[in-house]
Amino acid sequence: MRLAQENDRVLLISGKGKRYFVTLRAGDRFHTNVGSISHNDLIGKPYGRVVRSHIGHPFVLLRPSLYDELMGLKRVSQIIYPKELGLILFHLDVRCGSRVIEAGTGSGALTMALANAVMPYGRVYSYESREEMLRVARRNLEEVGLEEYVEFHERDIAEGFDETDVDAVFLDVREPWDYLPQVCQALMDGGFFGTLVPTTNQVSALLYELERYPFYDTRVMEVLLREYKPVPGRLRPQDVMVGHTGYLIFSRKVASDAELPAPEEGSED
Amino acid sequence: MRLAQENDRVLLISGKGKRYFVTLRAGDRFHTNVGSISHNDLIGKPYGRVVRSHIGHPFVLLRPSLYDELMGLKRVSQIIYPKELGLILFHLDVRCGSRVIEAGTGSGALTMALANAVMPYGRVYSYESREEMLRVARRNLEEVGLEEYVEFHERDIAEGFDETDVDAVFLDVREPWDYLPQVCQALMDGGFFGTLVPTTNQVSALLYELERYPFYDTRVMEVLLREYKPVPGRLRPQDVMVGHTGYLIFSRKVASDAELPAPEEGSED
Amino acid sequence: MRLAQENDRVLLISGKGKRYFVTLRAGDRFHTNVGSISHNDLIGKPYGRVVRSHIGHPFVLLRPSLYDELMGLKRVSQIIYPKELGLILFHLDVRCGSRVIEAGTGSGALTMALANAVMPYGRVYSYESREEMLRVARRNLEEVGLEEYVEFHERDIAEGFDETDVDAVFLDVREPWDYLPQVCQALMDGGFFGTLVPTTNQVSALLYELERYPFYDTRVMEVLLREYKPVPGRLRPQDVMVGHTGYLIFSRKVASDAELPAPEEGSED
Amino acid sequence: MRLAQENDRVLLISGKGKRYFVTLRAGDRFHTNVGSISHNDLIGKPYGRVVRSHIGHPFVLLRPSLYDELMGLKRVSQIIYPKELGLILFHLDVRCGSRVIEAGTGSGALTMALANAVMPYGRVYSYESREEMLRVARRNLEEVGLEEYVEFHERDIAEGFDETDVDAVFLDVREPWDYLPQVCQALMDGGFFGTLVPTTNQVSALLYELERYPFYDTRVMEVLLREYKPVPGRLRPQDVMVGHTGYLIFSRKVASDAELPAPEEGSED
Repeated sequence: MRLAQENDRVLLISGKGKRYFVTLRAGDRFHTNVGSISHNDLIGKPYGRVVRSHIGHPFVLLRPSLYDELMGLKRVSQIIYPKELGLILFHLDVRCGSRVIEAGTGSGALTMALANAVMPYGRVYSYESREEMLRVARRNLEEVGLEEYVEFHERDIAEGFDETDVDAVFLDVREPWDYLPQVCQALMDGGFFGTLVPTTNQVSALLYELERYPFYDTRVMEVLLREYKPVPGRLRPQDVMVGHTGYLIFSRKVASDAELPAPEEGSED
Repeated sequence: MRLAQENDRVLLISGKGKRYFVTLRAGDRFHTNVGSISHNDLIGKPYGRVVRSHIGHPFVLLRPSLYDELMGLKRVSQIIYPKELGLILFHLDVRCGSRVIEAGTGSGALTMALANAVMPYGRVYSYESREEMLRVARRNLEEVGLEEYVEFHERDIAEGFDETDVDAVFLDVREPWDYLPQVCQALMDGGFFGTLVPTTNQVSALLYELERYPFYDTRVMEVLLREYKPVPGRLRPQDVMVGHTGYLIFSRKVASDAELPAPEEGSED
Repeated sequence: MRLAQENDRVLLISGKGKRYFVTLRAGDRFHTNVGSISHNDLIGKPYGRVVRSHIGHPFVLLRPSLYDELMGLKRVSQIIYPKELGLILFHLDVRCGSRVIEAGTGSGALTMALANAVMPYGRVYSYESREEMLRVARRNLEEVGLEEYVEFHERDIAEGFDETDVDAVFLDVREPWDYLPQVCQALMDGGFFGTLVPTTNQVSALLYELERYPFYDTRVMEVLLREYKPVPGRLRPQDVMVGHTGYLIFSRKVASDAELPAPEEGSED
Repeated sequence: MRLAQENDRVLLISGKGKRYFVTLRAGDRFHTNVGSISHNDLIGKPYGRVVRSHIGHPFVLLRPSLYDELMGLKRVSQIIYPKELGLILFHLDVRCGSRVIEAGTGSGALTMALANAVMPYGRVYSYESREEMLRVARRNLEEVGLEEYVEFHERDIAEGFDETDVDAVFLDVREPWDYLPQVCQALMDGGFFGTLVPTTNQVSALLYELERYPFYDTRVMEVLLREYKPVPGRLRPQDVMVGHTGYLIFSRKVASDAELPAPEEGSED
């Protein structure tokens, strides 16, 4: 049994499924349009219990998961969603101890997922040229306690990255093909490159440019998540679904003098 | 620049895209039907280079990613694939330090992904009743160096789990609804439960049974991965795709005496 | 070049893509919130031209397609959409001359597609127990000039169908499994049966019941339509798509004394 | 009850689900690797019955649907499948009486679906430059008795179409954008244009070119068909599905001097 502590960040889910994130401070009060709750009544309460507002509305008290945090993130830009994040972590082989570059930071959703994956020994180097975004992303990372694994750079990545020999680079920028020299400079041989672009034209543009650099084992994919109404006697998919977020492209950098075997049509596994 | 070392597990990709996993031992020889290579010629070689067999066929020398390992796993059962693994890790909130139970172990694909995610401070408790599977899974985990984060139990989970107060439980068994008492026994309040089942009948059976236990915030989903041919001037999806692996169900255990707010139709976010 | 005639039903598409259906009557006036147009100005105008409201807003003058009519149908119920209608017509083999039963009529979308497919020699027998729906459906069919190919019956189909030896029967009702005796009574041996249900539970219930009657070659399917933004330089799917309408089930009735070959697992083509 | 007649084209489905098309001729014999059946034993037999080969293997005797014919078509090229055909018929508004051009004919799958839809009053004009394909398509149409509704032209469509003022034109050629002048020449104002292309590059190329001609209300879509194993107690999608066939593009030709309203972003319905 774990008890909610002062300074814990907690998740309260209302009867209507609305989600509230609260950092507990003795003496503070949490307000909603269905009544308020004193933080003092939450501190020391076991997680997984129902608490009630002063007018009786129920809330379930939980620790927020990283997924909850990502979905509830304060956004100043389109974020990358968990259905893509999971694939990104696998295809960039981001693991405990990895050193990873990402650009741009945006609202910090990927930053958060990367920081969570590389901790405690690894490091995320996150580049963003827009100061406002960097400020929001930094605060978002602080709120979930992952900021210590991230180094933020306010920088136009056309100027290059400070790090070299990193394990992976992910670009979430409009024209990723413009930065392949910088990526190659920073990435170790055998390292992982990835990007997410919304249009097919961008996929083609990137694939053309990747052919001019020492990249290998390139993959392009998209992922469709289909959620179901969790009603046992009337099981069916939700009526509306996300139709598109973007195309994921992954590749591995090899030695610049590698004489790569010619890709053979139909040989993709 | 990183060099392949003796005892490294390396990945060699042939010109046809065939993938070979090799653990380097001085004096050994790697054999394929397009010629062989002495391990001695690989030891000390930088990763990301092209090496050639004694009859000249090229191979790219790489460190295998966890994704590579999962796709190349020695299998004695249907495995859970990365497209589902990423969602499982997010929805069970498996992170560095988590204590997680899974059953059954099968070939160890999920075990591997869990071990990788909880390391170095966390622990995976993996239950399997079939001794042969456990043997293969253990060997698979050893090959990727993740066995130290896993405790295997040869056990029918009807007898219950040894651990209590764990952060998450995942069941990959035919009738997960039979084991909810054991799951509730092991899982902390607020902890995460997940399962993967192939048929809609199983989804319904589980959803009915979940209603009899203190579970909350239940979600059902499936994920479709669509891969594209990475040809810039003729971009198109692969002709054939995986049509189905299974349905994922996730829920959170709450306190057994929690008077849960009634779920309201259509209020899921 | 075809000219719009008095009594023609025309389609006017506004600059914002809004679609208006108008039956041309000399002296009438068509009103919108971006101005009005005299029907007299439309009568004698060639199709495919741009016409302007009295305050200058442009509209494209077109003959409505059956697809346009279906999407613009006055609805008193959930309708079946073209993505399913096309498959229904194929799997029920509805052709010029076919005699087809459907129940319930609903708003008449399927009725319209069936009538259009069987004309001029065939016939649609459409059953509906709710008088209000029948009234709307009849008017919808009249508006598109297909009512002469349809016989409407206000009837609870538990009482059976009037027709026998029909080529196909389609049920769009909540519990189609309850009416298989009536379906078998009406359908010729070798005839086609189909239904659309929203939940997996209904699919299972129907499949169980189909096994008790002489049905053969049963298929279950769903269809996902993915629309793209038609922008050549930024080609991408629409952000949101329909996630689910329903599951289609098709089967063929055979002779009641047919000793059917046992279905063999995995033998479906 | 309908009886199989001499000269009928019948469908025989074996116990393993294998489908055979046979045209009944007195005295002929139908041979398979599980035995043979005399046509004389089939002539006069009611449809929907089980017949047995001389060594006792069962076959179900059915009239082939158009769907059966399409799936069993003798192919000399990639064909267009029913999941796309249904949408093509709707979006080109092909109906009884329509006059429709298609190019290229290929194996005649679309030709067959168009002929079936326009009969008895309409007409299909089918263009193909490869004599061998035309020969196969013509035979395919004859086998299903639809050849009288089709006029075949052995012609490179760069030379233009013979017909004018047709209701619809469908191009199934590699570079449809090259033939828009010919399409505009043949198509009435307000008429329907459609095409199917496998790659995103082709979609973009066509969309760019459509902007140079008087086309309006352009739509791009793809359709995914998901089939389920029809097992009531273990309902689940098939493991493997068709991942891609092609992108459908539809548009309507308007008057060449039409000053089209500017399309407004996000206004597509």
